[in-house]
Amino acid sequence: MNPPLRLVPAEPGLSRYASLAQALRARVVAGEWPPGSALPAESQLASEHSVALGTMRRALELLVEQGFIERIHGKGTFVRQGLAGASMLRFFRFDGGTGEVPLSRILQRSLVSAPAAVSRALGIGTGEPVLRLHRLRLMGGQPCLLEELWLPLDLFEPLADDDLSTWDDLLYPMFARRVQVHVHRALDDIGFAQLSATQARHLGLPAGHPCAQVQRSAFDLTGRCVELRTTRGDAHAFHYTVTIT
Amino acid sequence: MNPPLRLVPAEPGLSRYASLAQALRARVVAGEWPPGSALPAESQLASEHSVALGTMRRALELLVEQGFIERIHGKGTFVRQGLAGASMLRFFRFDGGTGEVPLSRILQRSLVSAPAAVSRALGIGTGEPVLRLHRLRLMGGQPCLLEELWLPLDLFEPLADDDLSTWDDLLYPMFARRVQVHVHRALDDIGFAQLSATQARHLGLPAGHPCAQVQRSAFDLTGRCVELRTTRGDAHAFHYTVTIT
Repeated sequence: MNPPLRLVPAEPGLSRYASLAQALRARVVAGEWPPGSALPAESQLASEHSVALGTMRRALELLVEQGFIERIHGKGTFVRQGLAGASMLRFFRFDGGTGEVPLSRILQRSLVSAPAAVSRALGIGTGEPVLRLHRLRLMGGQPCLLEELWLPLDLFEPLADDDLSTWDDLLYPMFARRVQVHVHRALDDIGFAQLSATQARHLGLPAGHPCAQVQRSAFDLTGRCVELRTTRGDAHAFHYTVTIT
Repeated sequence: MNPPLRLVPAEPGLSRYASLAQALRARVVAGEWPPGSALPAESQLASEHSVALGTMRRALELLVEQGFIERIHGKGTFVRQGLAGASMLRFFRFDGGTGEVPLSRILQRSLVSAPAAVSRALGIGTGEPVLRLHRLRLMGGQPCLLEELWLPLDLFEPLADDDLSTWDDLLYPMFARRVQVHVHRALDDIGFAQLSATQARHLGLPAGHPCAQVQRSAFDLTGRCVELRTTRGDAHAFHYTVTIT
């Protein structure tokens, strides 16, 4: 791969290495280096962008901090594969939870027209087809989380009618492998609500029971929203720690 | 102030500038530069520690990232004053909230012997005296948050029997000014519970109403726990966003 020489645009307000990081980021987003692939050597990148090696190193450090690339000791610098789990267990603690991945049971998979709020969040036209999943997650045989997911069909079509028994318990690594969708960043919005009768039945709790509700928007490297997800679990199992400095 | 020349200890596993940052941090913690005070010029610091100016700059950058010091443009580098607000409003949204600081009403102030759990968390002996505060916070005249605070008396004695009407709505800036306690870091543990009859009455909610409960441990620069606080508010006003990368 021999990209043309790229000068760093002099953006006002951005330091030289921050502009450089932005230029490198654009090359990643454009697909020049796919997720999981290795970047060229620092010296080569520095010469391609006509900057000093030290400037290139600072730009790469910034991209590491931003979670865009990662250094693997003794191997090199790689475009990050995306979030492996982004586990909802960061928000919940269940009895008998021993750190294992919860089992996943797809309760329902359907192809529907995107409601207005969903199409807005996913950035697709109202009424465009989306894949809707209802999924139950279990630990030690006990239902613990109930999830509703919305996935844009243009990206997820191969998962619309395949054999559900081949699905993994963790979706993001499966999305990456099966449809090359890499979740790079997630925004989780936490609130409290009460379970409807149907939701409560799935979780083995009484109707109206208080629940914590996590509404996630997940984004790929280009910043496209590729998944909407609402996760509900017993409010009494909710637990989250924040450090403020 | 003329500190003796300090060589950077060669700690295994720490880069040179990280070791240097640690050495500077030790000088701050030892009280050589109190919160709010200016650090000496970078060149002087570099010569005191016998390092290159570039190395000193990277060490200072690290301390900025860690929230230990801050650069004020055109003025210099200062030891951070500590958290100004660390507002609980990051966790709650109230109708009529317009970004103003909630009013503070101290419902009760008492001198008590520290229960075991409190003394353990504060790192003092069981039964040692602590200042316990019950405080109500109001927005637009409406009660919104109920708080219980535990403060070690050895640090907060001047606040044990002064005129409560002189207290500010924000405690941390008042702690810094009145008793030179600077809250530098806070750990907030979020959970979910139900309001007791008394708690509910203060908040104008029915007994048993669901509440979000934030348990805070606040630390000073030396890492000492200087405050324990439990904040309770209507679960339906709870709202928090987390970005995962």
